[in-house]
Amino acid sequence: MPHIESWLEIPAGSDFTIYNLPYGAFRANDGRLHLGIAIGAKILDLHAVADAGLLDDICDRRILQAERLNPFLALGREKWKALRLRIAAFLRTDQAADARLRELNASRVFVDQADAKMAVPMNIGDYVDFYSSIEHATNLGKIFRPDGEALMPNWRHIPIAYHGRSSTIVIDGTPIVRPSGQRKPPGSNMPVFGPSTKLDIELEVGFVTGPGNKLGEPIPVEKARDHIFGLVLVNDWSARDIQAWEYQPLGPFLGKSFATTISPWIVTMDALEPFRTNGPVQEPQPLPYLRSGDRWSYDIALAVDLSTKRMRAQGSTPKTVSRTTFKEMYWNMAQQLAHVTVNGTAIRPGDLYASGTISGTTPDAFGSFIEMTWNGTKPIRAGDETRTFLEDGDEVTLRAWCESGDFRIGFGKASGTIVPAR
Amino acid sequence: MPHIESWLEIPAGSDFTIYNLPYGAFRANDGRLHLGIAIGAKILDLHAVADAGLLDDICDRRILQAERLNPFLALGREKWKALRLRIAAFLRTDQAADARLRELNASRVFVDQADAKMAVPMNIGDYVDFYSSIEHATNLGKIFRPDGEALMPNWRHIPIAYHGRSSTIVIDGTPIVRPSGQRKPPGSNMPVFGPSTKLDIELEVGFVTGPGNKLGEPIPVEKARDHIFGLVLVNDWSARDIQAWEYQPLGPFLGKSFATTISPWIVTMDALEPFRTNGPVQEPQPLPYLRSGDRWSYDIALAVDLSTKRMRAQGSTPKTVSRTTFKEMYWNMAQQLAHVTVNGTAIRPGDLYASGTISGTTPDAFGSFIEMTWNGTKPIRAGDETRTFLEDGDEVTLRAWCESGDFRIGFGKASGTIVPAR
Repeated sequence: MPHIESWLEIPAGSDFTIYNLPYGAFRANDGRLHLGIAIGAKILDLHAVADAGLLDDICDRRILQAERLNPFLALGREKWKALRLRIAAFLRTDQAADARLRELNASRVFVDQADAKMAVPMNIGDYVDFYSSIEHATNLGKIFRPDGEALMPNWRHIPIAYHGRSSTIVIDGTPIVRPSGQRKPPGSNMPVFGPSTKLDIELEVGFVTGPGNKLGEPIPVEKARDHIFGLVLVNDWSARDIQAWEYQPLGPFLGKSFATTISPWIVTMDALEPFRTNGPVQEPQPLPYLRSGDRWSYDIALAVDLSTKRMRAQGSTPKTVSRTTFKEMYWNMAQQLAHVTVNGTAIRPGDLYASGTISGTTPDAFGSFIEMTWNGTKPIRAGDETRTFLEDGDEVTLRAWCESGDFRIGFGKASGTIVPAR
Repeated sequence: MPHIESWLEIPAGSDFTIYNLPYGAFRANDGRLHLGIAIGAKILDLHAVADAGLLDDICDRRILQAERLNPFLALGREKWKALRLRIAAFLRTDQAADARLRELNASRVFVDQADAKMAVPMNIGDYVDFYSSIEHATNLGKIFRPDGEALMPNWRHIPIAYHGRSSTIVIDGTPIVRPSGQRKPPGSNMPVFGPSTKLDIELEVGFVTGPGNKLGEPIPVEKARDHIFGLVLVNDWSARDIQAWEYQPLGPFLGKSFATTISPWIVTMDALEPFRTNGPVQEPQPLPYLRSGDRWSYDIALAVDLSTKRMRAQGSTPKTVSRTTFKEMYWNMAQQLAHVTVNGTAIRPGDLYASGTISGTTPDAFGSFIEMTWNGTKPIRAGDETRTFLEDGDEVTLRAWCESGDFRIGFGKASGTIVPAR
């Protein structure tokens, strides 16, 4: 891969190298949300760069000065590429365009990430959550339906999914209030009400959509790439006790709807291009509308860090409780998008499609505590404590990155701390 | 009930009497959506009335000149009541305020409904579909799970629901493209792909939300009325063959997501107040957070009309295939809203919460064809044809009204015609 340098200092090990250039939204000094691009420890303020007239040949500056990315997402791949190349040209040492950006008052176009309050960068019209890891689906089947088939008969034919709650998608760092709800204690006929006692995470990656289709017109797998802008980390917080009691026959609802955390930076598919790879072989072969061809997986490393209140008080570093990879997901994004739209469903710019929990084959690669601790029967260690499900004060951080030699692209983080039930 | 007259001519039997005054949005001559209120065969253009400065003491005119109702919905009950009273005062013969409206050029403030192209009047952030008719849930249980319990053990404890697709909510009159998807033929191990062969409707009523709550702060049953603005008819079009194969374990997805039709006029809770009544006794008594007290049901009559292509060619009137009532729904709106938010989920202005299929106790009162024809085994007559599920060219119209003597409030209609799969 080519080596490119920026005239801007990029801290060693940064997630936000010049190869990355992910998009986010932050609260600017004028009180509005500005769109920005992460670079090193800085944010390049797109609102300010557009103000300076440096992007007028790419698109109307009102699009880059909107408070959310949706209008830009609606423009499509050619514009996405054009802006990415332009921003890279500004930041590269070897290209002339950088002079134009350097001329601008650096304090006006760059903001320190450490000072920035980030926001969900798009208005999310519909949020869909898949179930595309065969290891996760098998584990959950064994736990929730011990007397039935672990993997449902439809699972190898359909990228199973459900619609999630869009109003409760929150940005990295938002405290997570422990939800209350109904659960049915084992052996009882009657449910009880109270704070969830099985609060869990789900380690996921979600894609954000571009222009989308008209109602009634499917997006075939060959066109999927035109409608996928980039990826974020997704923590699909889950109350397993609420979920277990409510989910039949219409699926998960309040066990999931209380909060979903995403990472602030959308890593573009263009940035991830060097990490495309083949996914697992699908057996049986899916129906023709789901045959996506090769190289629709992405080699993304993932980690889940846990930090308890006591660990933080003791100054301990978080414990990495799971490490896994995105590339083994059974169903890929092209298949997911083709499936969602095959009945004519309309995709809008800014929709979020999450992968479902990403689990590997061993407990230290499982993407949820219900799997890691096998429904609480095998506690894991965290400092001098143990955990089955999450306690108040626990902080969970999802991380993801792609690496090849000194070439690194990171996702930042999706973090949340549990606060007691109201 | 008091008798009130309008100086505007209201056709006999109109759904839109002066007691009603429902809200909608239509495409105006300036190319923008205008908010409006249905009265008789006319629409009172709120945009124009606000332009004339007649509503400035109620709220900022930009709120009534927005293209969707969301900013007005966010204002809350006091403002909703104030505007309703003002509009009624304009239109009543016995009040002085009417003169102010009559002075305006009538052709500017009134539009003929027959000429108006209506639109979905709110941006729908989240769409939730309940399952609150015990007759429907029991019927579906018998049909989908003949070997299991008809009613799930959780059903009498939880107002069961799932999140639906908001991007495909369409207005009355929008053609419905027959969806394609996977279904598993009986006796086969492998699914096949193609147009749905079991296309169905669901007769529902949905409520549109007002201000809403902050993330993490439930809306208790006692406060539900502050957040429910009004009701629309909802046809939750359903592809039963797709649904049956996909729905386990995460619930309905593509079997429902292709289209949901709503009626254009939001009938307010204030208009429906005279029709409040008691709902059925709930046994066992629900958990305390779901105890709503009395008079949370509404005595709304409902009908489903079917008109086939051949019937229309022959000039036949549509056949009413089902008549039922809303008042027997097991779970009421206060319980539904309290349940959705009990885990802290945020409600936003303009959300849509549909009741689930409204079925009575006999086949001529069932709210779906899968129930009326018992999964296609008992065809019903329509003109000189029979039907199990919907054929291309079939038009289905949902209607609803409240009546007491000469006091009538109607919902208009939610209609859709099936067009062949692409």
